[in-house]
Amino acid sequence: MLTLYGDIRSGNCLKVKWLLDRMERDYHWIETDVTTGVTRSPQFLALNAAGQTPTIVLEDGRPLAQSNAIIVHMAEGTDLIPTDAFDRAKMFEWLFWEQYSHEPYIAVVRFRRAIAGQSKAEIEPRLMERGHAALARMEVGLTGRDWLVGEAVSLADLALVAYTRVAHEGDFDLEPYPAVRAWVGRVEKAFGIR
Amino acid sequence: MLTLYGDIRSGNCLKVKWLLDRMERDYHWIETDVTTGVTRSPQFLALNAAGQTPTIVLEDGRPLAQSNAIIVHMAEGTDLIPTDAFDRAKMFEWLFWEQYSHEPYIAVVRFRRAIAGQSKAEIEPRLMERGHAALARMEVGLTGRDWLVGEAVSLADLALVAYTRVAHEGDFDLEPYPAVRAWVGRVEKAFGIR
Repeated sequence: MLTLYGDIRSGNCLKVKWLLDRMERDYHWIETDVTTGVTRSPQFLALNAAGQTPTIVLEDGRPLAQSNAIIVHMAEGTDLIPTDAFDRAKMFEWLFWEQYSHEPYIAVVRFRRAIAGQSKAEIEPRLMERGHAALARMEVGLTGRDWLVGEAVSLADLALVAYTRVAHEGDFDLEPYPAVRAWVGRVEKAFGIR
Repeated sequence: MLTLYGDIRSGNCLKVKWLLDRMERDYHWIETDVTTGVTRSPQFLALNAAGQTPTIVLEDGRPLAQSNAIIVHMAEGTDLIPTDAFDRAKMFEWLFWEQYSHEPYIAVVRFRRAIAGQSKAEIEPRLMERGHAALARMEVGLTGRDWLVGEAVSLADLALVAYTRVAHEGDFDLEPYPAVRAWVGRVEKAFGIR
């Protein structure tokens, strides 16, 4: 069986969980609280030298890390990866952009505010600015469209919804982004996310 | 013909250039200095709403962004992408890790020191620590191996070498990482990088 090391509060980990649930795959979830140092243990580092969750261990015992690499691997051959080469490239564009220009602001501020218990005053204004820039860029990409890529839901929507849907926990108000708000509801429905 | 908007000092842009050169593809390089604000012009934002380089415009006029998404698309069907599904997944693991855990430290410090002209004292110690953690993680991955994935050079090596080979310009001494140093030489040779 698949073994998934994840923190249930982490959007990166939930991406993988939601995908496996949608695919009706069996897996063993091992709750892994990143704030306890357990991901720095020799046992965990042997699975993932980067010491990050999610990390999945495949049926044959081989480990794989990085949320977006995991969902791409697990979803191979499904309708969540476009068969058209250009659409697939745009999906990867969103996946890389998510990790570079969205997660480091939206997810990081949400973690510091909602999980680490920091006050609003402790958050550098630059992080809020960059987070809003990411949301504005999504609004452009979603205006007049139902999904980020092509005409169907894809891994791009799954990866981006993970932290966008909880952005308000980091004080990011989605009010100015109506296309993003409507899209969040569509993606939640497509993946059965509550 | 392909049109590539890039800054010749940027490792992210050079990844694409080195790949196209190795594939002997013709392209029109448009030097795009990110420090001038040109990537915030309406003309550029129409190509890439994220305002980032590299951005490539394909022969049919469709634009594609994100260095690692571009190299994956352009290299499709070549020996730089492993045919084995697990090796391909590990390649993606390295590509996503590069953008999340390597580039934001190694490339950012190198940009601030070597291009923006900041002094050593202006660099937050945390950035140096995270950069060295990335190099240490690469050393683990390369010890006893010639390439990051499987038994042959892949896009993982191309993506990671881009800023690792100029890490010293950000005061990251590669002396403690002998496997990384030897690998840099191998990858440079494989791609004809000087």
